[in-house]
Amino acid sequence: MTLRDRAAPWAGPMAAVGTWLCLTVPMAAIVGSLCALFLWSLDRATQARLDYPWLLYGLPVAGVVIGFVYHWVGRPAEGGNNLIVDQIHEPGGGVPLRMAPLILVSTVITHLFGGSAGREGTAVQLGGSIAGGIARLCRLDAAELRILLMGGIAAGFGAVFGTPVAGAVFALEVLTIGRIEYEALIPCLIAAVTGDWVCHAWGVGHVHYPVAFLAGAEAGGFTLDGVLLAKVAIAGIAFGLAARLFSEASHLVQTLYKALCPYAPLRPAIGGLLVIGLVHALGTREYLGIGVIGATPEDASILNFFISPVVHDWSWLWKMLFTVITLGAGFKGGEVTPLFFIGAGLGNALSGLLGAPPDLFAALGFVALFAGAANTPLACVIMGIELFGAGPTVYLATACFLAYMASGHSSIYLSQRVGIAKR
Amino acid sequence: MTLRDRAAPWAGPMAAVGTWLCLTVPMAAIVGSLCALFLWSLDRATQARLDYPWLLYGLPVAGVVIGFVYHWVGRPAEGGNNLIVDQIHEPGGGVPLRMAPLILVSTVITHLFGGSAGREGTAVQLGGSIAGGIARLCRLDAAELRILLMGGIAAGFGAVFGTPVAGAVFALEVLTIGRIEYEALIPCLIAAVTGDWVCHAWGVGHVHYPVAFLAGAEAGGFTLDGVLLAKVAIAGIAFGLAARLFSEASHLVQTLYKALCPYAPLRPAIGGLLVIGLVHALGTREYLGIGVIGATPEDASILNFFISPVVHDWSWLWKMLFTVITLGAGFKGGEVTPLFFIGAGLGNALSGLLGAPPDLFAALGFVALFAGAANTPLACVIMGIELFGAGPTVYLATACFLAYMASGHSSIYLSQRVGIAKR
Repeated sequence: MTLRDRAAPWAGPMAAVGTWLCLTVPMAAIVGSLCALFLWSLDRATQARLDYPWLLYGLPVAGVVIGFVYHWVGRPAEGGNNLIVDQIHEPGGGVPLRMAPLILVSTVITHLFGGSAGREGTAVQLGGSIAGGIARLCRLDAAELRILLMGGIAAGFGAVFGTPVAGAVFALEVLTIGRIEYEALIPCLIAAVTGDWVCHAWGVGHVHYPVAFLAGAEAGGFTLDGVLLAKVAIAGIAFGLAARLFSEASHLVQTLYKALCPYAPLRPAIGGLLVIGLVHALGTREYLGIGVIGATPEDASILNFFISPVVHDWSWLWKMLFTVITLGAGFKGGEVTPLFFIGAGLGNALSGLLGAPPDLFAALGFVALFAGAANTPLACVIMGIELFGAGPTVYLATACFLAYMASGHSSIYLSQRVGIAKR
Repeated sequence: MTLRDRAAPWAGPMAAVGTWLCLTVPMAAIVGSLCALFLWSLDRATQARLDYPWLLYGLPVAGVVIGFVYHWVGRPAEGGNNLIVDQIHEPGGGVPLRMAPLILVSTVITHLFGGSAGREGTAVQLGGSIAGGIARLCRLDAAELRILLMGGIAAGFGAVFGTPVAGAVFALEVLTIGRIEYEALIPCLIAAVTGDWVCHAWGVGHVHYPVAFLAGAEAGGFTLDGVLLAKVAIAGIAFGLAARLFSEASHLVQTLYKALCPYAPLRPAIGGLLVIGLVHALGTREYLGIGVIGATPEDASILNFFISPVVHDWSWLWKMLFTVITLGAGFKGGEVTPLFFIGAGLGNALSGLLGAPPDLFAALGFVALFAGAANTPLACVIMGIELFGAGPTVYLATACFLAYMASGHSSIYLSQRVGIAKR
């Protein structure tokens, strides 16, 4: 037995780490840079929408432009997140490079004209598209393509939300309901940390959501409050049911659009008109766009759910309606930032009903609704810790795990497989 | 379709949560109480060992007593942790109730006379034994027994270390290398939180390990230090290799004992004599017992690796030797607290070599060596967060994931299956 043979079982996994370092770091650096460009453009678009309110009336036309662009040149990229997850499960046609510019520009347009949408879909598609391109360039085989695509998801997710460890776990967890496999553990971590670091290096930061509850607690000194835990459990189940409502409403609205307008490129016109109608009927623009920061301190917005003393009882339901109407029509973006809004809003409302700290419950809803809708409870617990600190770890886990159980097998990702059924 | 049929897919998983609540809470309350009794006894035994140094010379005789008790009445419980993991994979003979008193008393005896051992094996066996007893009492079927046994592991682990979320994830993760399945997600969380809460309710606390590095950082405001990350990556690989050395040395020493003394009950006498010999050869008692708190501020101990300015270059290797000699001979306890010691000690030593914060590196080694030896990277990241706070999450994940990769397929748990091979 040569020295090399003897060293192989010790060095093998480490040599693999080296190889993945060379492949993943450049990929994630590109994805992180694109995410920085995307977040910067999104900020500019949101500011422009607030400065020029009349832009909203362009929403139907902007939607039709997006519709026709995807119809003419975007067909292979139309699957979006589902295409990437499908290619990880059964590598085949690959993920086209054109997905990156298409999703970036169309998401910014959606936000500029006031559609209610998010960011994670865009980030994941930027990641998948760049990973797919690099895989073709380096002639990776199917097994390697799978791993690089997972790294792409991790890089996009980690960069766009500033939560690298959650990004790495999300990429492993989102593929299959009820199961995580560690095949791509290290490539996903490298990709997510690199993506996040590069995005920061471009000077792009993230909004900080302050949770005063337990923020000053000493690490390791957690004491459980049994009554609060029971309230958190009730809220967790509510978050899961709301997640299920969101997933099922999304699919239902899509079916209705298809029945109403069989020709896809024109559907966004209907969606745009519905959004304009809702804005006039409700007399508020709070539910347009990304919804992270409100135009006024009283507005319903993710940040205000954490800091404002105003309780918003039904904001979460209105945001859900605006979002399913926008995305179901064919506008682009993601579901996750609206899910943060809906969750934080529902948490804010439930904190009033249950007599619990509003900032804690906004934080729990923020991650738990997403955990239920994407079936990613562990990634969401870690995301909660990365965003809000370690103090509420037990409450985060309770809310996310229960939301995961209560959301059933419906999912915002139709290409997700069921590994271990919930029961 | 009746209302009940319509409600079933929504209510099903929630009804299951209710059932598991009724089964798991009483089980975990008993396990948490036994863990409290165990931790209290362990403290008394450790104090007595320090007060009466001559107790060490009773170690060989105490070991032979443990050996004969297990030989005469403990045969069905001898498998320990491996028996529980085997029963989860292939439910069959069950886990005997006598495992609980046997492991509790024999672990306390091991510590009273100065054996180098830990706590998690005892806690996991208390959990598995009580869960097995309740499963027989309630006539659970094989699938339910599996889930209750996982809950028992979670309750014991969560209670003994004061890390409930890590306990829940550990119980799911330890069964199979490279894969987590969510079948028992909620029962494990209920069990771990209950076990931890009950243990605290008995007034039993845990030692706090202070990590000043990043402790004051605002949640969500993490900025990566690239040079430090590279040092953490090097340390993570070293932790994984040390974990592998520990696993392989444990198995080797066991084989040597068997060759040297085919009659099992007498092996602890040899082990006891070896420990006494080592104490006299080295002229120090630092490596005896649990090793959490040192007798003097200069002693090698887990807490001192975090706070003392003294750097201990080879403490980790000596502790490894003391532990494999103690446990391989048939003394009882667990491997995990010694792994914390070895990891924190190696982290302390590496911080000197690499020019890095000693408290951070002690914390990283604490969880990462365990992640490599037990193949449980996610549980160990969460454990690190629960013990040391959210500040170093990215460094914890880097160290734990790399240690997991570098440790190969060897494991302190021989009954662990390989799900997804590392490569």
